[in-house]
Amino acid sequence: MRKAPTKGEETRALILKRAFAMASAVGLEGLSIGSVAKSAEMSKSGLFAHFASKEDLQLQVLQTAVERFIERVARPMLSEPRGEPRVKAFFENWLAWAESADLPGGCVFISAAAELDDRPGPLRDYLVKTQREALSTAERAARIAVAEGHFRADLDVEQFAHDLYSIILAYHHFHRLLDDPKAAFRARASFDRLLERSRIPHFGRSNS
Amino acid sequence: MRKAPTKGEETRALILKRAFAMASAVGLEGLSIGSVAKSAEMSKSGLFAHFASKEDLQLQVLQTAVERFIERVARPMLSEPRGEPRVKAFFENWLAWAESADLPGGCVFISAAAELDDRPGPLRDYLVKTQREALSTAERAARIAVAEGHFRADLDVEQFAHDLYSIILAYHHFHRLLDDPKAAFRARASFDRLLERSRIPHFGRSNS
Repeated sequence: MRKAPTKGEETRALILKRAFAMASAVGLEGLSIGSVAKSAEMSKSGLFAHFASKEDLQLQVLQTAVERFIERVARPMLSEPRGEPRVKAFFENWLAWAESADLPGGCVFISAAAELDDRPGPLRDYLVKTQREALSTAERAARIAVAEGHFRADLDVEQFAHDLYSIILAYHHFHRLLDDPKAAFRARASFDRLLERSRIPHFGRSNS
Repeated sequence: MRKAPTKGEETRALILKRAFAMASAVGLEGLSIGSVAKSAEMSKSGLFAHFASKEDLQLQVLQTAVERFIERVARPMLSEPRGEPRVKAFFENWLAWAESADLPGGCVFISAAAELDDRPGPLRDYLVKTQREALSTAERAARIAVAEGHFRADLDVEQFAHDLYSIILAYHHFHRLLDDPKAAFRARASFDRLLERSRIPHFGRSNS
């Protein structure tokens, strides 16, 4: 039986929740112990009782993001039939992810990527690990679609994952920065082309 | 005849040069009047004689980036033959852009995008304008390739520009964050697929 959370665990969860939403808008670097403490209605020293340093808080925010990404993007696709339906669910869940109510500023991973690419350290290492895992998940889903006979046997699944992620990155850029009302339409059109060229070609309907 | 730059113009150009390289690594938000002044070996008040505010400096750094992007990416493609060769040159120049010696931290536009997407104001407006212009340049190049009979007449040139930019965004992510040695190979493979599906189909070699 799962134990009820202690008061300390509840406080920690509340802080992370607030810090997570803030990181979406101002980035991981924009998180300050002071502003997070204020948002959680506690003192700075109260916050330090739960997080050893700003970097510790940032790391735990990224870990929270990974947990939620698994919950909302990776896990739900498993209830879809193996093969192309699962790949499609993964893509649609990922598009929806950046629109989550608790991510008012869009995907934390994408904004963290721009912040951390020139800053070596444990935070960057952890981010890279999460990105590689997301790509592996896409590769695995594509590999299953090959095994199911939906995708061609000679499909380069690494390239597939790269191309899928390109579309997600572009969606974030066109939707959030350019306010392009066609951003989702463009993303789905690109993804449809990616599916088309990944499928087993049907003889008798070439190029269709 | 062009006049020799005044001492003041030279100083301003030096400050912008240093600020530009710094922005590539630490982002536009990371630029502080103090750190830029230090890098240009002058006092903060000396710097304020050239730039009214931090935002003014950031805006001029973005303007510098646009000038260099035009010089290195957009203009050189014009010496290539009209049509597909020009589209290819644009793409290759754009890949090379993020590797420029004076951009040690990669493309300033991409890092600025993550910083500014949630910060309304003149800086964000200017960035959006530059991004739309880069996309229009890609669209125009694709439209010429249609007119030259290289690309299909029913090509959606907006989608083409979107897809081309997706590949650039992914290249930045895979190369700079993930240190993926195949980043350029993957980018070119995606671009080749984009060209293939944009070309006029050749009868007698379907799907090739």
